[in-house]
Amino acid sequence: MKRLNEALDRMTPPSVEWREKAYERLRQQARPAGSLGVLEEVGARLAGIARTLDVHLTRKVIVTCAGDHGVCAEGVSLFPAEVTPQMVYNFVKGGASINVLARHAGAEVKVADLGVNWDLEPDLPIFHKKIRKGTDNLARGPAMTRDAAVQSIEAGIEIVGELLADGPVDLLGTGDMGIGNTTPSTAIIAAFSGLPVDQLTGRGTGVDDEGLRRKVAVIEKGLAINQPDPRDALDVLAKVGGFEIGGLAGLVIGAAANGIPVVCDGFIATAGALVACELAPVARDYLFTSHYSVEVGHRYMLTRLDRKPLLDLQFRLGEGTGAAAAMELIDMATRILADIKTFEEVAIQDAQA
Amino acid sequence: MKRLNEALDRMTPPSVEWREKAYERLRQQARPAGSLGVLEEVGARLAGIARTLDVHLTRKVIVTCAGDHGVCAEGVSLFPAEVTPQMVYNFVKGGASINVLARHAGAEVKVADLGVNWDLEPDLPIFHKKIRKGTDNLARGPAMTRDAAVQSIEAGIEIVGELLADGPVDLLGTGDMGIGNTTPSTAIIAAFSGLPVDQLTGRGTGVDDEGLRRKVAVIEKGLAINQPDPRDALDVLAKVGGFEIGGLAGLVIGAAANGIPVVCDGFIATAGALVACELAPVARDYLFTSHYSVEVGHRYMLTRLDRKPLLDLQFRLGEGTGAAAAMELIDMATRILADIKTFEEVAIQDAQA
Repeated sequence: MKRLNEALDRMTPPSVEWREKAYERLRQQARPAGSLGVLEEVGARLAGIARTLDVHLTRKVIVTCAGDHGVCAEGVSLFPAEVTPQMVYNFVKGGASINVLARHAGAEVKVADLGVNWDLEPDLPIFHKKIRKGTDNLARGPAMTRDAAVQSIEAGIEIVGELLADGPVDLLGTGDMGIGNTTPSTAIIAAFSGLPVDQLTGRGTGVDDEGLRRKVAVIEKGLAINQPDPRDALDVLAKVGGFEIGGLAGLVIGAAANGIPVVCDGFIATAGALVACELAPVARDYLFTSHYSVEVGHRYMLTRLDRKPLLDLQFRLGEGTGAAAAMELIDMATRILADIKTFEEVAIQDAQA
Repeated sequence: MKRLNEALDRMTPPSVEWREKAYERLRQQARPAGSLGVLEEVGARLAGIARTLDVHLTRKVIVTCAGDHGVCAEGVSLFPAEVTPQMVYNFVKGGASINVLARHAGAEVKVADLGVNWDLEPDLPIFHKKIRKGTDNLARGPAMTRDAAVQSIEAGIEIVGELLADGPVDLLGTGDMGIGNTTPSTAIIAAFSGLPVDQLTGRGTGVDDEGLRRKVAVIEKGLAINQPDPRDALDVLAKVGGFEIGGLAGLVIGAAANGIPVVCDGFIATAGALVACELAPVARDYLFTSHYSVEVGHRYMLTRLDRKPLLDLQFRLGEGTGAAAAMELIDMATRILADIKTFEEVAIQDAQA
């Protein structure tokens, strides 16, 4: 709990003064006020975080957290759990979706094992942060102990620290891999919001109508058995969450504690971000949301976070792919703020010509 | 009319076979089918256009067409018409919004004068295609003659030809500059759709309630006086359009005739694309729409074109800024198609390892 408390203690809000300076510059640029829409807000928020009007997102890193889920025994996913370790190897080899999108966005991809049900080789170039080989089945009891929940969050915080040991990180992206993990993510937003489970549950990677009904029943059972306390984010994570979701929460907390803007991917990464922001509301000031997931529960997470994603591309993949796509726009927002000339700058340029 | 007819004659549909090959590859990639949403469709359409699965959008060009509007005499815009030439100079100097966004997207910016009400120096490095110094006031009679409408479209086609003289263009973007040009653009969709003008009219760069009422009245008057024939796109362009809108239509026709994908910006560039596609329905197969403009009439244009934009960033600037932002995603779509490995490729890689 020490590392988590330290991170929470270190967290301070971004600079309101720099954010306002940024809005002032944006208003003075030679174009109608507000005409670059949400990218103006993104630029101003980044200025508040970085305390400069000339933000450069030189080093961008996407961390994809992987974990397995005991609840897969209930048949909530189309894919077998063996796919989780297979995809970890695929990420390391560089041919997976996230590698391709991150390369385009100029971001590094780092993979973290938070709880994959497989003995991954110790020399595999990933963050080895396995808490345990998969959670317990949340439909039968708590997914993990409260201690394990804290450990998974602290693992995410540690990863940020280890990334920083190699040099500053200017933008962190978060993504997930874990067969079955739309089930705990749905359970998390159900626990926090108290809304009916059938209103929050989507088809994940594509279950049919019967699969969807089963998934709803499994989540309802998990909530009824575990009774997670919505005012206690650690309790929610422990009882109906996942190791990679804890890791994703830790990445957001670690980023915020170190003054780094962080962009989360879709449904599962946002579940992690939600846990982070319930624990530490200031973290929200560092958080950007990348895209609207096809998963219906995502909208409710976003409402609770009061964040609007930049993209709506109908992605439903995870891995950090939406975060990678959004990074290009976030980067563009920094150039809009710094490089578009103000009316005054245009006049000076003309006088010098 | 010769150059326009030649372009229309040369236009052929993209390859259905290559598009289907692309969908086949996308379905075989090591991820849930369809999980990269609309970027899969973008990639497949580009494959159909380029007739390869490995599309490279090496040379991207955004052409910003500028023109002035006689209808400004009716007080339809907040900004004085002198801003149009000022912005042309600003584009050439490289400090305007479109320069900044295009630089980020790795695209060249080219400016074209289709009808700016100013004597631009002949050595200014732009496409000099002035039809006349601004249109006539569409609220008092036709904005231009039918001949001038054809000339403006042919100027756009010529620009594509001149760009190609410097080497292949892999993706063309279209953008606009013209104080007052939301008025003719609204009149164009009103003419084609027959819908009530007040349902289609937005605030442009920010007129107030009274300004909005005046703008609606001006457009209604223009349509009543001119009676544009919705089955005759040249008649619509001539009677209630603009020179830069004709140029924007010509760019789409020129791109389609040369097998080049083209992405249009927001409200005004889409008005041009609409004129192009009403004249030449095949052009639609080459057309991508970049973003939802804040202008309400834009949705009706998109419905008529049956195209969904990639972005909704609340931009309302023009210049090609939305096209520039979308270019990054379009580029990403080519990498998704070509570089994400199929299950078979992953297995081959594993066997070789």
